[in-house]
Amino acid sequence: MATSKKKSTSAEKKGNTWSGRFDEPVSELVQRYTASVGFDRRLAEYDIQGSLAHARMLSGAGIIDAGDLAAIESGLGLIRDEIRSGEFVWLLELEDVHLNIEKRLTTLIGDAGKRLHTARSRNDQVATDVRLYLRAAIDDIIGLIQGMQRALLDLAERHVDTVMPGFTHLQVAQPVVFGHHLMAYFEMLKRDVERLSDCRRRVNKLPLGAAALAGTSYPINRKAVAQQLGFDGVCENSLDAVSDRDFAIEFCAGAALIMTHLSRLSEELILWMNPSFGFIDLADRFCTGSSIMPQKKNPDVPELVRGKTGRVNGHLVALLTLMKGQPLAYNKDNQEDKEPLFDTVETLIDTLRIYADMLTGVRVNQEVMRNAAMRGYATATDLADYLTKKGLPFREAHEAVAQAVRFADKSGRDLSALSLPELQKFSRLIDSDIYAVLTLEGSINSRSHIGGTAPAQVRAAIRRARKWLS
Amino acid sequence: MATSKKKSTSAEKKGNTWSGRFDEPVSELVQRYTASVGFDRRLAEYDIQGSLAHARMLSGAGIIDAGDLAAIESGLGLIRDEIRSGEFVWLLELEDVHLNIEKRLTTLIGDAGKRLHTARSRNDQVATDVRLYLRAAIDDIIGLIQGMQRALLDLAERHVDTVMPGFTHLQVAQPVVFGHHLMAYFEMLKRDVERLSDCRRRVNKLPLGAAALAGTSYPINRKAVAQQLGFDGVCENSLDAVSDRDFAIEFCAGAALIMTHLSRLSEELILWMNPSFGFIDLADRFCTGSSIMPQKKNPDVPELVRGKTGRVNGHLVALLTLMKGQPLAYNKDNQEDKEPLFDTVETLIDTLRIYADMLTGVRVNQEVMRNAAMRGYATATDLADYLTKKGLPFREAHEAVAQAVRFADKSGRDLSALSLPELQKFSRLIDSDIYAVLTLEGSINSRSHIGGTAPAQVRAAIRRARKWLS
Amino acid sequence: MATSKKKSTSAEKKGNTWSGRFDEPVSELVQRYTASVGFDRRLAEYDIQGSLAHARMLSGAGIIDAGDLAAIESGLGLIRDEIRSGEFVWLLELEDVHLNIEKRLTTLIGDAGKRLHTARSRNDQVATDVRLYLRAAIDDIIGLIQGMQRALLDLAERHVDTVMPGFTHLQVAQPVVFGHHLMAYFEMLKRDVERLSDCRRRVNKLPLGAAALAGTSYPINRKAVAQQLGFDGVCENSLDAVSDRDFAIEFCAGAALIMTHLSRLSEELILWMNPSFGFIDLADRFCTGSSIMPQKKNPDVPELVRGKTGRVNGHLVALLTLMKGQPLAYNKDNQEDKEPLFDTVETLIDTLRIYADMLTGVRVNQEVMRNAAMRGYATATDLADYLTKKGLPFREAHEAVAQAVRFADKSGRDLSALSLPELQKFSRLIDSDIYAVLTLEGSINSRSHIGGTAPAQVRAAIRRARKWLS
Amino acid sequence: MATSKKKSTSAEKKGNTWSGRFDEPVSELVQRYTASVGFDRRLAEYDIQGSLAHARMLSGAGIIDAGDLAAIESGLGLIRDEIRSGEFVWLLELEDVHLNIEKRLTTLIGDAGKRLHTARSRNDQVATDVRLYLRAAIDDIIGLIQGMQRALLDLAERHVDTVMPGFTHLQVAQPVVFGHHLMAYFEMLKRDVERLSDCRRRVNKLPLGAAALAGTSYPINRKAVAQQLGFDGVCENSLDAVSDRDFAIEFCAGAALIMTHLSRLSEELILWMNPSFGFIDLADRFCTGSSIMPQKKNPDVPELVRGKTGRVNGHLVALLTLMKGQPLAYNKDNQEDKEPLFDTVETLIDTLRIYADMLTGVRVNQEVMRNAAMRGYATATDLADYLTKKGLPFREAHEAVAQAVRFADKSGRDLSALSLPELQKFSRLIDSDIYAVLTLEGSINSRSHIGGTAPAQVRAAIRRARKWLS
Repeated sequence: MATSKKKSTSAEKKGNTWSGRFDEPVSELVQRYTASVGFDRRLAEYDIQGSLAHARMLSGAGIIDAGDLAAIESGLGLIRDEIRSGEFVWLLELEDVHLNIEKRLTTLIGDAGKRLHTARSRNDQVATDVRLYLRAAIDDIIGLIQGMQRALLDLAERHVDTVMPGFTHLQVAQPVVFGHHLMAYFEMLKRDVERLSDCRRRVNKLPLGAAALAGTSYPINRKAVAQQLGFDGVCENSLDAVSDRDFAIEFCAGAALIMTHLSRLSEELILWMNPSFGFIDLADRFCTGSSIMPQKKNPDVPELVRGKTGRVNGHLVALLTLMKGQPLAYNKDNQEDKEPLFDTVETLIDTLRIYADMLTGVRVNQEVMRNAAMRGYATATDLADYLTKKGLPFREAHEAVAQAVRFADKSGRDLSALSLPELQKFSRLIDSDIYAVLTLEGSINSRSHIGGTAPAQVRAAIRRARKWLS
Repeated sequence: MATSKKKSTSAEKKGNTWSGRFDEPVSELVQRYTASVGFDRRLAEYDIQGSLAHARMLSGAGIIDAGDLAAIESGLGLIRDEIRSGEFVWLLELEDVHLNIEKRLTTLIGDAGKRLHTARSRNDQVATDVRLYLRAAIDDIIGLIQGMQRALLDLAERHVDTVMPGFTHLQVAQPVVFGHHLMAYFEMLKRDVERLSDCRRRVNKLPLGAAALAGTSYPINRKAVAQQLGFDGVCENSLDAVSDRDFAIEFCAGAALIMTHLSRLSEELILWMNPSFGFIDLADRFCTGSSIMPQKKNPDVPELVRGKTGRVNGHLVALLTLMKGQPLAYNKDNQEDKEPLFDTVETLIDTLRIYADMLTGVRVNQEVMRNAAMRGYATATDLADYLTKKGLPFREAHEAVAQAVRFADKSGRDLSALSLPELQKFSRLIDSDIYAVLTLEGSINSRSHIGGTAPAQVRAAIRRARKWLS
Repeated sequence: MATSKKKSTSAEKKGNTWSGRFDEPVSELVQRYTASVGFDRRLAEYDIQGSLAHARMLSGAGIIDAGDLAAIESGLGLIRDEIRSGEFVWLLELEDVHLNIEKRLTTLIGDAGKRLHTARSRNDQVATDVRLYLRAAIDDIIGLIQGMQRALLDLAERHVDTVMPGFTHLQVAQPVVFGHHLMAYFEMLKRDVERLSDCRRRVNKLPLGAAALAGTSYPINRKAVAQQLGFDGVCENSLDAVSDRDFAIEFCAGAALIMTHLSRLSEELILWMNPSFGFIDLADRFCTGSSIMPQKKNPDVPELVRGKTGRVNGHLVALLTLMKGQPLAYNKDNQEDKEPLFDTVETLIDTLRIYADMLTGVRVNQEVMRNAAMRGYATATDLADYLTKKGLPFREAHEAVAQAVRFADKSGRDLSALSLPELQKFSRLIDSDIYAVLTLEGSINSRSHIGGTAPAQVRAAIRRARKWLS
Repeated sequence: MATSKKKSTSAEKKGNTWSGRFDEPVSELVQRYTASVGFDRRLAEYDIQGSLAHARMLSGAGIIDAGDLAAIESGLGLIRDEIRSGEFVWLLELEDVHLNIEKRLTTLIGDAGKRLHTARSRNDQVATDVRLYLRAAIDDIIGLIQGMQRALLDLAERHVDTVMPGFTHLQVAQPVVFGHHLMAYFEMLKRDVERLSDCRRRVNKLPLGAAALAGTSYPINRKAVAQQLGFDGVCENSLDAVSDRDFAIEFCAGAALIMTHLSRLSEELILWMNPSFGFIDLADRFCTGSSIMPQKKNPDVPELVRGKTGRVNGHLVALLTLMKGQPLAYNKDNQEDKEPLFDTVETLIDTLRIYADMLTGVRVNQEVMRNAAMRGYATATDLADYLTKKGLPFREAHEAVAQAVRFADKSGRDLSALSLPELQKFSRLIDSDIYAVLTLEGSINSRSHIGGTAPAQVRAAIRRARKWLS
């Protein structure tokens, strides 16, 4: 076929960097199937950054001369500008971000460009790029988590005295303050920050110098490159350096936990906005309506966040499946690490940014929350504790209160609405001081130890949190 | 901020279809986060197809008049052309494919366009679009699988007599013919076709008429719409119709199995191309080289296929996670069904197409394969069977042969290289007719029952397969 | 070490069926790590069933004589009794269910027992056992699903006129009847039955005859064995027969969908039991209390079901990961198919059984449900439809109603509580007949087409469902 | 039914700790479905440990008196002995490990036993138990990883000079030494240890004091309990304390990576044992034979390890799915965290133990490895580097060598077998010093920088590794 013949010739001319050994060029379908430039151009800035450090090291080690270095520096600077301004022409037949940039460099500066790839391979180059990319992403994400934590703290601070029903099994358990409830999410996000910071240490190692898999015969200086790129150290085994994708998997596992946390908060926001709950309202700008039902105001954002949990879990599974059973060292399978990783990063960044903003638009219906805490005998445990403090073994107190609840339930009243004689039928130890115990505030204020829901404790927790953040 | 103010006004002017109830427009970030038009425009053809059938039914039922129908038909025809030619302008602020098309329709034909959405909702509309899309995708994929099956049959037919070592535990077990080995993949793909066909029956049901969730008060005719769109029937419960995504999950589970099968064949191609094996060579056009190692010829395509198994498994997990615990009926979470589904379809289509082509470029090194079958005492079972046929209980025959293998192994010879007296040390039942049994061909030809590796059986299997395909 | 020496000797005496070729016995740790008898004894009945059919075929084909067959039949009968009565002694050093039974058979009947393994291998034997096991499990599970469907129908029938708010985005959308809502789950389960039935066809194929991987040199009759065991046909490629685990994966994918459906219903039961909802109550026998809070009544069963969704999804991922990239034919990896499969089957069986029972104990608070439908302007769509029927294009009607809802919301009233002049401010087309439209019953009854929520339609759906079940 | 009636009464007598509020006991099926004692008895030691610390704190804070404490201490000591000796009778109707122990304690010591549950709930109790369990498991696993690392180092040390082909894409890339290859796995496991250590810090926080969800009204001293149990600190939010399962998920993610690493090494061992490779042999005690093929020696252990990767990935997915979208605080779903976690721990422990042992039984076929490195033009990169050092830009050197390889390949020779004039046809820069470069040792020794494969570097890496381990 005439067309395909022409293609071949043009492919040959464009010169795959490895074409000399081959009898026929890759088919167009294969070219498209194997090319990564459609998504790995996200790495362009990092690729240039890595190339600059590599070139400086090559020059420092006398492997290329000063003139070559100067040419490479100016050429890569130009390319960076072209990419930033959108002028750069990405070519599918040049496979990936690396070859696109290198080809352009050679066009711009000639032989010096051809010398840049000395003492490295795409295998260690791409591993370096991805690590630089992910390091920057982690820093962004940590910043965004902390932004969301600040929004949580602001909201919690306003609701240190707002009573709501604390649920277990989604049944009313004991009253808590809303600020305390929100601080549970602060804790989760704090662990997320710690986890990402730990992950960052393992990301922040330099693969360059591993070359294809075995190292290089040039007198390179890996520590100099590491230092220049801000890495904490070098990957200490060349085979591992080019085949390791642990860092991407560890990051995605951390991301799955972040999304899991947000899915839980989202579930609660959605429940709380349901009119039977009616605990909160979200600002209109985070909701959408219906194309058919004119009255609808839907909490789209938390719903989407809940849904996107699946997406991130899926990416984690993709990466784990990818690496299972791969023999050393680099295999082409690894190219499949990028899209899941990129999408995880982008999903997290968008979600965290929007969440922090959304929290500022939460309007709390304090009265509705309080009324809900009045249903469900939230202070029954307090009655049991009261009896225990008067000497009854806990298990017997528990049973006495269970009977009292059963009695109250049958007459449709709260425990605090029972008369003293009625209460005393369940235990002689009950006296008139019980009514202070059975109020919501009595219950809440009594839980005053580190981690408890007493407002004083919640205020202290918020103070500690602000300190940790700063 | 001036900019954001202007945005708001413009958003209002552009008129979200549900904006009347809201005090403030959605924020730009929310708009971007919740919009699906970036990916759901893939549904455009199907959206128009569904709208045409809906409009015709509305007209048939007297809900809209003939003039409106004519206008809608010509308007949608125009839009289809605009989309096909790439002229259509997709707007993010119009959220999704449905509203983009509807807005354009209203611009083109006025009030008639506004009547199109009568008696339906985006909830049943998108469910219909996705089912139409997936039905077409399944048909394409079945065709591509069968294309790959044909390539397998052609290759198998050429190698009905090509002997190779059959492995279990990747150890030499018994000799088989290469054509037989390939036919195992034919069987897997045959099941894949059956599974997709079963799935198609569940895809091919009409959700339209469910409207938002409860049905509609218009005198619609769902069966007419179903018939026009080629559906086998209607979804029989409106709440289920708008919230069901089973079909997408079932499809992705089927897709994960297809990719699992291809990952196994890919693993084998990669192994067989390793020089220690050297069983096959892939045509150059399916391989790429190295940027640093001039001698390399890498089986990129099978490696990528193996890697993409993770991607598809991940999408399946994403969808299952998505649906877990969702209360009825439609929730915004469901918008997250599309990207995993689309990417699964596209991955399958590309992979199957390239695989069928690649199989035609497999060059088999028959001598190397045969030599490999000579290592590992592949005919030991035949010796055991020989003894059993002469009356020894199988378990005792097994033990005698194990001792013979041990003896042969220590002297570095194959069983067929032992002398008769040597063999007879392990059993008196052995006679000179044993040597016919111990050849590769003797072993292979003896396995002559349905499913066995005897060339006659493999030929019969290929014939049955060709018949099934046609 | 003296102990290990003694172990070795004893292992040799116990006679691993393959020990003749080995210099040292497997270590104790390896024996424990590789043994499957701890879990695969669930297959014992099926192993015996398969062996009997195999022995009869061997005898029919003249491979063993009538005396051997009689001995095998009586021996296996005895062993079956021993297993059923719990007397059978399972030995870890005999690895798996197959060798435990065969060894016992040989002890009981001598040489005839040693002949049973003629013309088969553990590879095709275990594949046969698992298929027989799964076929029986599918039949049980289909029966249990249908039991749960009956419970749904009974409950739905009692609530064909019970009004509840239909939700989208967990916001009140339109009123529906509770019976209609329940029927959505009937539809899901119906698809589940269909899916399992489709899967059963692929399960119900005979692997026996594949032997280790290549078939056997004995003149076997595979169709006779298939017929005797009730299989629909034979696996047509021996390599595929011993390495295929598609059927287990397909089943687990179907199981994951069943659990996903149950997770959705569970989520709803949990929400509906929350006191802010208060739609239903579960019978005490499906709930548990708290060790500390005496008033608690927790919906443990639906919570556990929701949680067990993860378990089944996990098993699916385990199996897909297991098979990824495995070269042909049988590899030991495949032993890992059993525990996920068994646990999936058992989880489903327990869950479905308990769910059917639990549905009979659902007490519905009709008044609370109805009141919830009054909140949230559930009939706003009806007003829009009313206007459209009077000639207003749908999009304009939608906008007018959105304004009306906004007005009503600000004054805290339902649309039906607005006066005619108030309503007419939003459209001149509104007349006094609007009040019939704005009632819950008006809305519900108007959705009277197949799949709609009108009680007449729900009754018809229940009738169709009962017919399908019988 | 008489039986079920008797059951009820007995259940009442046995006294569920929460039965007072209930009209009917849980059904037997529910009891079995919701009970966890079948698996959570693994926590018994930790439950007792936690109870002792709790009791001492209660006594220290004056909540119980010294007599009660003494009774509790002696009672729990007795129970610990009963459990260790296997005498303890576990009852399903007592649901879980906590109630089984508490009930027995009350039987043994009366009212003091009933006081133990003061100021705590099963919610914080089980969270504490699981953390204590997991902390111990992590310590064990880290020890076992290091054991395996030592085995790797010993093997690597013996093979610092053993040449093998380094693969990329499973094609021969460049020669490496086997010790270097093994050290890649050392690096992976080192990261695993770091990751588990990071995880341990998050595991090692005390939930006790959170009580059911809100804290307790007793004057507890959480820091004292934390200190006594060796925790690094307390969970700072009570709602988070009882609902957090991050630590289990993070651990399972770490475990999935460990198994992924072992799956890669297993894949390689399996490949290397295939007779076409023949690089290594595993000791007989890690292999098993075949029931039908007398000659087989199968690498069962690495195959099972590879397969068990799926199991652990599945558990990770189970836990992530479990937590998705759960509202605060404790829900019964969380009970499903245990089996995946326990099985993950046990799988890791068994696998690591057996792997360390297996590595000591690896026999290396040095000559075969070396010969394999001679195939595939492993030193082509060295020729390119040689040319580059003589001034040719790398990209041109690459092309020249590609042509040389093509030429050599066509005549079936290695590069080192070409004559000088032949080589010079591809570049005038080639001189007789090229032959030193083209040897395997020349290539290997030249890669002498940190992370490179030169034996001197590998020795240094082993030294660093031994230092890190000690």
